[in-house]
Amino acid sequence: MYDLIIVGGGPSGISASIYARSRGLNTLLIEKNKIGGMIGKISMVTHFAGIMENESGHSFAKRMKDQAESYGLEIAYEEVVDTDLAGPEKIVKTKDKTYKAKAVIIATGTTAKKLGLENDSEFFQKGLYQNAQDDHDYYKDKTVVVVGGSDGACKEAIYLSKFAKEVHLVHHGEKLGTVQEFKTIIENSAKITVHLSSSVKAVSGDDKVNSVILENSASGQDLEIKAPDLGVFVHIGADPNTAIAKELEMEDGYFKVDNCCQTNLPGVYAVGDVRNTLVRQVSTAVADGTRAAIKANEYINSL
Amino acid sequence: MYDLIIVGGGPSGISASIYARSRGLNTLLIEKNKIGGMIGKISMVTHFAGIMENESGHSFAKRMKDQAESYGLEIAYEEVVDTDLAGPEKIVKTKDKTYKAKAVIIATGTTAKKLGLENDSEFFQKGLYQNAQDDHDYYKDKTVVVVGGSDGACKEAIYLSKFAKEVHLVHHGEKLGTVQEFKTIIENSAKITVHLSSSVKAVSGDDKVNSVILENSASGQDLEIKAPDLGVFVHIGADPNTAIAKELEMEDGYFKVDNCCQTNLPGVYAVGDVRNTLVRQVSTAVADGTRAAIKANEYINSL
Repeated sequence: MYDLIIVGGGPSGISASIYARSRGLNTLLIEKNKIGGMIGKISMVTHFAGIMENESGHSFAKRMKDQAESYGLEIAYEEVVDTDLAGPEKIVKTKDKTYKAKAVIIATGTTAKKLGLENDSEFFQKGLYQNAQDDHDYYKDKTVVVVGGSDGACKEAIYLSKFAKEVHLVHHGEKLGTVQEFKTIIENSAKITVHLSSSVKAVSGDDKVNSVILENSASGQDLEIKAPDLGVFVHIGADPNTAIAKELEMEDGYFKVDNCCQTNLPGVYAVGDVRNTLVRQVSTAVADGTRAAIKANEYINSL
Repeated sequence: MYDLIIVGGGPSGISASIYARSRGLNTLLIEKNKIGGMIGKISMVTHFAGIMENESGHSFAKRMKDQAESYGLEIAYEEVVDTDLAGPEKIVKTKDKTYKAKAVIIATGTTAKKLGLENDSEFFQKGLYQNAQDDHDYYKDKTVVVVGGSDGACKEAIYLSKFAKEVHLVHHGEKLGTVQEFKTIIENSAKITVHLSSSVKAVSGDDKVNSVILENSASGQDLEIKAPDLGVFVHIGADPNTAIAKELEMEDGYFKVDNCCQTNLPGVYAVGDVRNTLVRQVSTAVADGTRAAIKANEYINSL
């Protein structure tokens, strides 16, 4: 029986774990993949106060992991498949085990959306990527395509333009949905070509991708980008991972919480990208984790 | 005429400035003292996700300053004395100048409380300190007194115990109001003596402090701590710096804001320690700055 179980090891979960451990809570963090979550997979962490110069998602995630472990955090690398959270004893089930705790913080984040092509899975990790790659350098002097128009997609295009031969940024909208900082860099880049009102119609190749066909919704014209060993990076949003907790109240597909990240169930909190919020940034996720852990500690002490 | 004026350069103000600059806002940050705010003056930054090992307030503040300046932030080192924020043109007055902007973010933080002794000012910075000192090492092998029982006071006592001869932690309450992490370290420290139910009755000396008299509210007994060149560090809470904006709605002495840190006036936001909130941590201040800058940008673009 733990005091607290945190499901998910992204910035919000890690922040919660540090605060929980500092308060002496016997805490288990369950992560199905790697500590760092979505931010651990991006090329550049940019606007979070206090980050290092040229901070990568990888280096940021490593520092968070070290920090949490320095607090004696117990981490189980398992996938949570179900929960039972309504009673005073909270139950968290992974594929093989059942854990119990007095309180639970859900920090399961989101899963990146796929292109939705018939052969999405055929080329997955063979030229077609849902996130930035650790071995980005593989695309040095090669042609890459980034799909999406948000901050995430634009950052990825900018990062890749530092070493790729050419970068095609493909966005379905009429203009990029990113901040001025990234717009300016992209406009001034000789390497980045922006394809607006465009979406990916087909991806093909032999064992690796060598052709991407874009469909332009304004002109009705198709455009083929052809190159050997083409890299396609998909950044077209993400869906919240809410399936493990069916008892929680929802809002627009996200867990609904109050100012201190408490859900409709006492002792159950939701933090970061999986909860309803107007602003989704590393900083707001980290603050969510802070608030939830402090409130969970108060809740546990009140039992 | 600026797009945005941010008053105060602590974590919330700096975070806001980075987000504002990334969005291309012509931004002025006004800071009366040093970038970093209260956190810049503490010995150890502890629970903020992603900090360095053994992070000091000084190193954290420096990194935030560098980060903001890398975004071309304009900083004026002046003291804001008054504002006029109700109209569409926001006016911010310093002692010598008047600045104008479309939106304003108030990040003025708090001012540390004084002991309230008659001779507080006589010994200020001559043995009596409101915050941690850059030249802490001066107290190597000397006797120090820390007043307060919160996380801030306890962290300071722990930090000083690494090199001081002995540390007296003086708290008016019956137990320390800090997290388990710090309680455990203090209990196990051979150098830290905790004086509970105690407050400082008098501080005296020649040109520097050499005597502190404690009054015990439980026993009614006084206790004198006597040593040449005694250091007294006061961490007994702080008052919000709200005097510069008299038009804003208040709650319990703090500026009242909504989920996105907007005050009752359109285009005016309050962030960090100066706004009403249940949790006051670096992480929540940084998230406030993030939200306010994003909302200020939307507001400015809607004009």
